[in-house]
Amino acid sequence: MNVVQFNFPAPIWYGAGAIERLPEALAALGAKRPLVVTDKGIAASPLVQRPADLMRAADLAVAVFGDVFGNPTVAQAEAAGAALRAHGADAVVAIGGGAALDVAKCAAVLARHPSPLLAYEAFLSEPKPIDGEVPPLVTVPTTAGTGSEVGRSAVVSDDETHRKKIIFSPKLLARRIILDPELTLGLPAKVTANTGMDALTHCVESYLHPMFHPMCDGIALEGLRLISGALPRAVAFAAQIERGGAGADAARADPAHVAARGHMLCAATMGAVAFQKDLGVVHSCAHALSTVCDLHHGLANALMIVAGMRFNEPVCGDKMAVMAQTVGAKDASAAGLIAWLAAFRAQIGVPRSLRDVGVRPEHVPALVEAALADACHTFGPRQPVTAEDFAALYREALA
Amino acid sequence: MNVVQFNFPAPIWYGAGAIERLPEALAALGAKRPLVVTDKGIAASPLVQRPADLMRAADLAVAVFGDVFGNPTVAQAEAAGAALRAHGADAVVAIGGGAALDVAKCAAVLARHPSPLLAYEAFLSEPKPIDGEVPPLVTVPTTAGTGSEVGRSAVVSDDETHRKKIIFSPKLLARRIILDPELTLGLPAKVTANTGMDALTHCVESYLHPMFHPMCDGIALEGLRLISGALPRAVAFAAQIERGGAGADAARADPAHVAARGHMLCAATMGAVAFQKDLGVVHSCAHALSTVCDLHHGLANALMIVAGMRFNEPVCGDKMAVMAQTVGAKDASAAGLIAWLAAFRAQIGVPRSLRDVGVRPEHVPALVEAALADACHTFGPRQPVTAEDFAALYREALA
Repeated sequence: MNVVQFNFPAPIWYGAGAIERLPEALAALGAKRPLVVTDKGIAASPLVQRPADLMRAADLAVAVFGDVFGNPTVAQAEAAGAALRAHGADAVVAIGGGAALDVAKCAAVLARHPSPLLAYEAFLSEPKPIDGEVPPLVTVPTTAGTGSEVGRSAVVSDDETHRKKIIFSPKLLARRIILDPELTLGLPAKVTANTGMDALTHCVESYLHPMFHPMCDGIALEGLRLISGALPRAVAFAAQIERGGAGADAARADPAHVAARGHMLCAATMGAVAFQKDLGVVHSCAHALSTVCDLHHGLANALMIVAGMRFNEPVCGDKMAVMAQTVGAKDASAAGLIAWLAAFRAQIGVPRSLRDVGVRPEHVPALVEAALADACHTFGPRQPVTAEDFAALYREALA
Repeated sequence: MNVVQFNFPAPIWYGAGAIERLPEALAALGAKRPLVVTDKGIAASPLVQRPADLMRAADLAVAVFGDVFGNPTVAQAEAAGAALRAHGADAVVAIGGGAALDVAKCAAVLARHPSPLLAYEAFLSEPKPIDGEVPPLVTVPTTAGTGSEVGRSAVVSDDETHRKKIIFSPKLLARRIILDPELTLGLPAKVTANTGMDALTHCVESYLHPMFHPMCDGIALEGLRLISGALPRAVAFAAQIERGGAGADAARADPAHVAARGHMLCAATMGAVAFQKDLGVVHSCAHALSTVCDLHHGLANALMIVAGMRFNEPVCGDKMAVMAQTVGAKDASAAGLIAWLAAFRAQIGVPRSLRDVGVRPEHVPALVEAALADACHTFGPRQPVTAEDFAALYREALA
């Protein structure tokens, strides 16, 4: 696989080994003192140490903030911002999953905008403007899910309420995106499945959003097509590696593994490009599950998507049929898509019910309240989504 | 239809009435002295005079270069460049079909780069660099075909040899694109069909190009889907207007007409975004037909696309089947796509054979020579394309 350049919507370098071009990306941005923002779990691993070495070899003064973990929080973002200021960083290199990327974006905002971060929250009635300089951002995703690498926003949780808060600015769009599938070869099967279902949900919900934006629609459908082929393969390779032995070695060396991981990275990026349109009810349900039950965002989407599609079906069955056709479902109909989604998530090992991950009927009132307060459902194809609707959605997903 | 903003790949304003925002676009670019570059056939019409009035009302010093006609030539481009320098223009507003847009781009290059234009031709072994400042460009297409409004290149013909030459620079990407379907409501049926087939060919050939670029693939497929629905409707409305009487008035006022024109404008833009990947053998055949027989580029593509797809079918039948599915062809197969294309162009009134537009078997040797010299076929899915292959393609299209 060669390294090729896309210019869409920002320059993307895609391919095995693309990480080697990180120093070149920083040189083009005039950066000398990059701060790496990354996940605690990988800070000491080659995923971060190799790029750090590459940068040092190019005479860049690198510092690493490696304290991101779990769902990203305001406290982590403030700490990363302090690290950025302490280092006098002139660029931010975000390496990791969506959490690290979102914390990195917040740190970039805090370079020249005084704390507290939440004064800039997008949905405040009068947010403080992000009008100062923001150091350039290079994003290097190590999971294929959120697509935060091409987003203009960061999602962080309030440390006390656990509510998800959104920081938005066009200035948060990465100046260079590096999609290197080799960085994702070691992802466990479960993480692969959960993050992949996040990307899939982005494609599905953005396509169903009613705005006329045919470029995003095409990107969403093609992302969905890639995921339908690549995600089961990527999960199967990951499982083979987890079983160990000769099979694991074979999976590590299999070009089909790299290809599947590459397709997933592209599809995750595409999902986030597509959701420039916006998302919908599945995301509101999922955000509430993270707030109330601390569920992984991708897993929460996976657990809600079938119920969410049944909810949407009365108003956008035609579009669901197009998606069914795109993924090669047995029936090219809305019902065919719903059946395909249920079978697909089972195939990649996602639990069937919210009960399987510890959510209980007693959580429903709090979930409904948090979901209603989330903005995503106000953009979706079926309006309005009432408290009764949310309660029914959660009950269905608990069944 | 509301005016919405896309940021893909450059800011696009799309919607009926979007032209009213032209002064706002120029203000954002800091322009005070725009030069309009446009087609001779529309320079005196409201298509140009209304935007000119809007700019004057915003205290902009507007000049108009209205001498573009036929396939764009180097002489026209040099004249437009001289007009730009004479006016001291600080922005270029390109209003018209692909020819006007391409001449406008060349004029922008010639603002700060000395003549002759062809010293900068992309395929020279040592082209002069386009390294100076290029005044910002706003593009306002009045046809839905070339997609030149989002392209980074301009195609102009050498005045003596009639060979198509390419001027390329990322600096030629428009800073703002205005897609206003109301500007295309008066297009005759024939022009609508021919330019629409150009857009369709861009979607088809870019999708078949072998580079892995799933975003462009998705955009190409969605553009094709839009065209399959909107082009026959747009042509039918245009024909109804040409027949005159009460039916013409009804067609002019029909919101479905505006919608079809809008979908075609989007699809044309999408075709050109997609062919960032590159094109293929149909375009080489078509370029030669313009060079040798002065055929309209869209018409030439329309006349060659069925033969071109038969040529490609052995190496990319699977992708052709996906396209067949996308347009709703009876058979979701390569053969189904080819049959659909033949029926589609007949439905919109495109002639069946090159003979119907004056091409004769005696032209074939010159056509083959010009097609071989064209670069497009060297990018397509089936390699190589020999002189014998081209001769067979032209004979098939002459049958």
